[in-house]
Amino acid sequence: LSAAVAQGKVRVPTHIVSSICDDRGEEPKYAGVTMSELIEEDYGVGDVISLLWFKRKLPKYASKFIEMCVMLCADHGPCVSGAHNTIVTSRAGKDIVSSLVSGLLTIGPRFGGAIDDAARCFKDGHDNNLTPHDFVEGLKKRGMRVPGIGHRIKSKDNRDKRVELLQQFARKFFPSTRYLDYAVRVEETTLQKSANLVMNVDGCIGALFLDLLASSGAFTKKEADEVVQIGYLNALFVVARSIGLVGHALDQKRMQQPLYRHPWDDVLYC
Amino acid sequence: LSAAVAQGKVRVPTHIVSSICDDRGEEPKYAGVTMSELIEEDYGVGDVISLLWFKRKLPKYASKFIEMCVMLCADHGPCVSGAHNTIVTSRAGKDIVSSLVSGLLTIGPRFGGAIDDAARCFKDGHDNNLTPHDFVEGLKKRGMRVPGIGHRIKSKDNRDKRVELLQQFARKFFPSTRYLDYAVRVEETTLQKSANLVMNVDGCIGALFLDLLASSGAFTKKEADEVVQIGYLNALFVVARSIGLVGHALDQKRMQQPLYRHPWDDVLYC
Amino acid sequence: LSAAVAQGKVRVPTHIVSSICDDRGEEPKYAGVTMSELIEEDYGVGDVISLLWFKRKLPKYASKFIEMCVMLCADHGPCVSGAHNTIVTSRAGKDIVSSLVSGLLTIGPRFGGAIDDAARCFKDGHDNNLTPHDFVEGLKKRGMRVPGIGHRIKSKDNRDKRVELLQQFARKFFPSTRYLDYAVRVEETTLQKSANLVMNVDGCIGALFLDLLASSGAFTKKEADEVVQIGYLNALFVVARSIGLVGHALDQKRMQQPLYRHPWDDVLYC
Amino acid sequence: LSAAVAQGKVRVPTHIVSSICDDRGEEPKYAGVTMSELIEEDYGVGDVISLLWFKRKLPKYASKFIEMCVMLCADHGPCVSGAHNTIVTSRAGKDIVSSLVSGLLTIGPRFGGAIDDAARCFKDGHDNNLTPHDFVEGLKKRGMRVPGIGHRIKSKDNRDKRVELLQQFARKFFPSTRYLDYAVRVEETTLQKSANLVMNVDGCIGALFLDLLASSGAFTKKEADEVVQIGYLNALFVVARSIGLVGHALDQKRMQQPLYRHPWDDVLYC
Ligand SMILES: CC(C)(COP(=O)(O)OP(=O)(O)OC[C@H]1O[C@@H](n2cnc3c(N)ncnc32)[C@H](O)[C@@H]1OP(=O)(O)O)[C@@H](O)C(=O)NCCC(=O)NCCS
Ligand SMILES: CC(C)(COP(=O)(O)OP(=O)(O)OC[C@H]1O[C@@H](n2cnc3c(N)ncnc32)[C@H](O)[C@@H]1OP(=O)(O)O)[C@@H](O)C(=O)NCCC(=O)NCCS
Ligand SMILES: CC(C)(COP(=O)(O)OP(=O)(O)OC[C@H]1O[C@@H](n2cnc3c(N)ncnc32)[C@H](O)[C@@H]1OP(=O)(O)O)[C@@H](O)C(=O)NCCC(=O)NCCS
Ligand SMILES: CC(C)(COP(=O)(O)OP(=O)(O)OC[C@H]1O[C@@H](n2cnc3c(N)ncnc32)[C@H](O)[C@@H]1OP(=O)(O)O)[C@@H](O)C(=O)NCCC(=O)NCCS
Repeated sequence: LSAAVAQGKVRVPTHIVSSICDDRGEEPKYAGVTMSELIEEDYGVGDVISLLWFKRKLPKYASKFIEMCVMLCADHGPCVSGAHNTIVTSRAGKDIVSSLVSGLLTIGPRFGGAIDDAARCFKDGHDNNLTPHDFVEGLKKRGMRVPGIGHRIKSKDNRDKRVELLQQFARKFFPSTRYLDYAVRVEETTLQKSANLVMNVDGCIGALFLDLLASSGAFTKKEADEVVQIGYLNALFVVARSIGLVGHALDQKRMQQPLYRHPWDDVLYC
Repeated sequence: LSAAVAQGKVRVPTHIVSSICDDRGEEPKYAGVTMSELIEEDYGVGDVISLLWFKRKLPKYASKFIEMCVMLCADHGPCVSGAHNTIVTSRAGKDIVSSLVSGLLTIGPRFGGAIDDAARCFKDGHDNNLTPHDFVEGLKKRGMRVPGIGHRIKSKDNRDKRVELLQQFARKFFPSTRYLDYAVRVEETTLQKSANLVMNVDGCIGALFLDLLASSGAFTKKEADEVVQIGYLNALFVVARSIGLVGHALDQKRMQQPLYRHPWDDVLYC
Repeated sequence: LSAAVAQGKVRVPTHIVSSICDDRGEEPKYAGVTMSELIEEDYGVGDVISLLWFKRKLPKYASKFIEMCVMLCADHGPCVSGAHNTIVTSRAGKDIVSSLVSGLLTIGPRFGGAIDDAARCFKDGHDNNLTPHDFVEGLKKRGMRVPGIGHRIKSKDNRDKRVELLQQFARKFFPSTRYLDYAVRVEETTLQKSANLVMNVDGCIGALFLDLLASSGAFTKKEADEVVQIGYLNALFVVARSIGLVGHALDQKRMQQPLYRHPWDDVLYC
Repeated sequence: LSAAVAQGKVRVPTHIVSSICDDRGEEPKYAGVTMSELIEEDYGVGDVISLLWFKRKLPKYASKFIEMCVMLCADHGPCVSGAHNTIVTSRAGKDIVSSLVSGLLTIGPRFGGAIDDAARCFKDGHDNNLTPHDFVEGLKKRGMRVPGIGHRIKSKDNRDKRVELLQQFARKFFPSTRYLDYAVRVEETTLQKSANLVMNVDGCIGALFLDLLASSGAFTKKEADEVVQIGYLNALFVVARSIGLVGHALDQKRMQQPLYRHPWDDVLYC
């Protein structure tokens, strides 16, 4: 039905159509699963995200992987634009929701990780059988950096441990890691250019999400494409970072920090 | 140091003070725990929330309980004000962040559960040794309903299963459930007034969080008071419901729903 | 009818009740005034605010005064928390609405002027016939500063010109300035304490709005009380400052400023 | 200097660059104009918008025109998505800022007027010397409606009075109306297709803003292009509609409306 509605084939008699959660019975259901079942059958936060976003239960390793992503993206210190705005708003004496929201609104093209972009690019390169070399040169021609590649500190001989751990996890439990393998081959190409052009955590998550969509057996090809196109991975970052932003808002209240005013002498009035 | 800063005893030489996450090293640390440790030692989402909000690792049962709360509060259907505004914004063609935020901003005194209020009231009644009867009458005199008590459908002989499951979990794993026990005695009193004045899921979470703060051994009395006063439980609802709100935003995009316009004939122009 | 609805005397058959603008005819009406009338009869922005907020046309001097307030509160530089967050969000590459909103959310108890507070205090002192001395001492006893009094730079012998101009305007056109006169007498008292405890622009606007509500003949006493209690003056600041915040968002885009990251060495990690 | 900064030619020694308002002196200046000057020399709200957004004073007729736009876009009833979300948030008991913001976030591609789009299209057609016929057919080929053309109620023989009044104003005071004239010729073409394909108020504002940019003598060609490209006209709608949204938030508080819950039977659960 929901597909028919989307295609405009069916004219619905109500003003709202909704498909993820039914609250009409004795207890709410997430994609058909009651809240009692959630607890009795030991669902986790990753499962709840799957139910409400993908409308299906994913295999154990997949929801575990989603939880890993949430944990790794939950915070990245007070200096990034999201945390900064949340801190400023909390220090203006505003409530937790306003503080969180003021920070969330900075998430976008320049702040929020390159996960969706990395996924889109790797999918494009892999599915069109571009050699890693052609893939990298193609982006360069369009004046783009390879999303998911590059690190300020890490390098060839000093890899990011999180990337290693995520790879280990996936190679052990995922049915296939062909997108990850493609990303690794891209990394081999970029490493020839510079030692710090290693796969970063965003690139690793992006590639592995493609593997999960393609090989878990839970998604049709059309559904997988839709997930990448609509941009669920950015949404995952948003939910994850909410944990950190709320943490920063609470932190400032706990320390009773006063109103922030940017110092005059750090502004060029022109 | 952070206490000294809060008390104004120390004049800090920087414009920002922050204490939950350090991003200066090779990998970010949440309250001193590196991201590699998070993955290698099998931390969960509940642990990350503890680290970033409470700045400490809690016992296994406690972080499991936090995850249960996140799962149970993640969504409650499309009709509540938060989901509704998110749906309207998503249908106006706006991005996921804007859609999420438009819904989050409705969370507050009337929408968002009565968890913090329930915790504050039960703490007050219990710590001041009010009999359940005096507690209930005291609120009535001030014209207030007992927060955490009452259900539209459930009743004495048809309890809310989630409340039963949470109670079972706590009685099995929590060192003490004295706040829960107090809330149960309050429920006995209100049930004499009306069969539907049962403890609801908000009341149960509120009481159990008090037990967790008081008996886990992880918080001083002063720290526990601060958590209740600042209102961390409302924040927990906010993060949990973000999952559902993002789900609703994605749902509308998937179904390509058009701009929402409230029907003229459902408005009284006066 | 709208009063009856508010008092719950009438059960309305619709889910929404609305009273400020009717969009059902050929052209929208603001409180009964068509948009053609607005233009043909030379209404101004101040009149539109009156129509949509107060549901009535005010005398010319009153809407002129509202416009003066909008102009004087429209911006206050890039360092205050609102402008700062808008700048950070605009530099994160986000759209104008997100940038504006991220800044607006900092407006509240500590940022946004003391206009509503000044109005509430002066109204309280004046209507209860407190002598200026008792008024000042009463606030001091409660540990409060007199809102609307005090200036970082200005003083007894170097008054704020805006305050002078607003006073001149009001003394020329307002039927009565008894609240302003009360505020001036309060200022005389505080000036005996310190030369910089002059009436500031917030205090002047707050007092004059009270005069406008009391003496324009356009409001009943009950209506005037409601305006002060609900907090329309803070709302006026919000609309005014939207102009400046949008200006800052556009300014950063015009100058193509990059992502803002707060400097590490300006943060105390504790 | 600000152009050099934008082009990356100058490396600034501060973290923030700002150019619209200087708050360092005795009173803030908007683009060099002190607040005293604003009042003494009878500036209006339109002038303040010009100073803070365009960094220049515009001729009287131009700032008057900006004020007309603000007034005509200030509200459009409670049913549109912006007002609706503001109403829902206000009824959830949230503050004025949160209520305003929840509504503002719906402004975008589908809600907020077609002013910027109309301006971009008319500019493109006019500057490239497209005949009105080719212009209309070109858009049709790309599957687009002509922005700024079409009205649900108005038609050839029953014009929108606001459009007439704006046109009259511009023909009387603007040095040139060549973009408006182009839009009128486009209208002649579309009217041959259908009687209701008249120029609407969005189209009229869009075309006239182009005339203002091109013929007021206040903008270089490059500056005018930048204004259209960055999207100032959408920003004008945002500031204008803030007045109405705040009006709706206040309206609901005045009528003490309870929490809104969308009716279950108006939702298709699928
Ligand atoms: C992560 C990142 C910001 C680290 O950057 P950095 O170490 O500060 O590197 P610099 O920006 O100083 O770039 C150094 C050189 O490497 C090149 N480079 C950096 N990342 C590159 C990439 N992903 N693809 C191709 N070339 C890259 C730069 O173009 C530059 O070359 P140049 O000196 O010839 O101009 C950068 O690698 C990047 O933008 N990656 C892509 C986006 C991404 O994955 N971000 C994830 C974190 S959100
Ligand atoms: C949950 C709740 C909204 C369900 O309400 P409901 O079944 O629709 O009940 P009604 O509002 O029709 O109230 C029925 C009667 O019970 C009383 N009542 C309901 N909840 C009560 C409570 N928590 N304490 C005391 N009396 C209560 C009402 O005052 C009313 O009495 P009256 O008919 O003499 O006026 C309601 O019990 C409540 O407000 N509880 C407190 C807040 C709370 O815990 N909310 C959790 C969900 S967010
Ligand atoms: C406007 C304001 C922030 C300027 O402050 P400032 O010149 O930096 O003054 P300080 O904060 O250094 O205070 C200097 C002394 O004057 C006193 N003071 C300042 N404003 C006062 C007031 N409004 N009422 C009573 N005493 C006041 C302070 O308590 C302090 O006394 P102390 O040294 O004995 O403690 C301050 O006057 C104020 O808070 N006013 C009230 C709020 C207000 O109207 N704000 C309008 C701007 S939004
Ligand atoms: C303003 C508007 C929504 C009114 O629409 P409406 O009267 O309900 O018209 P409909 O959507 O029913 O369209 C009727 C026919 O006119 C056509 N049409 C409507 N507006 C058109 C336009 N601007 N250009 C070309 N054709 C148009 C439609 O394609 C439709 O043709 P069809 O029946 O062959 O498919 C519509 O004209 C429009 O979208 N205009 C462009 C956007 C705009 O300027 N909006 C301003 C208000 S924010």
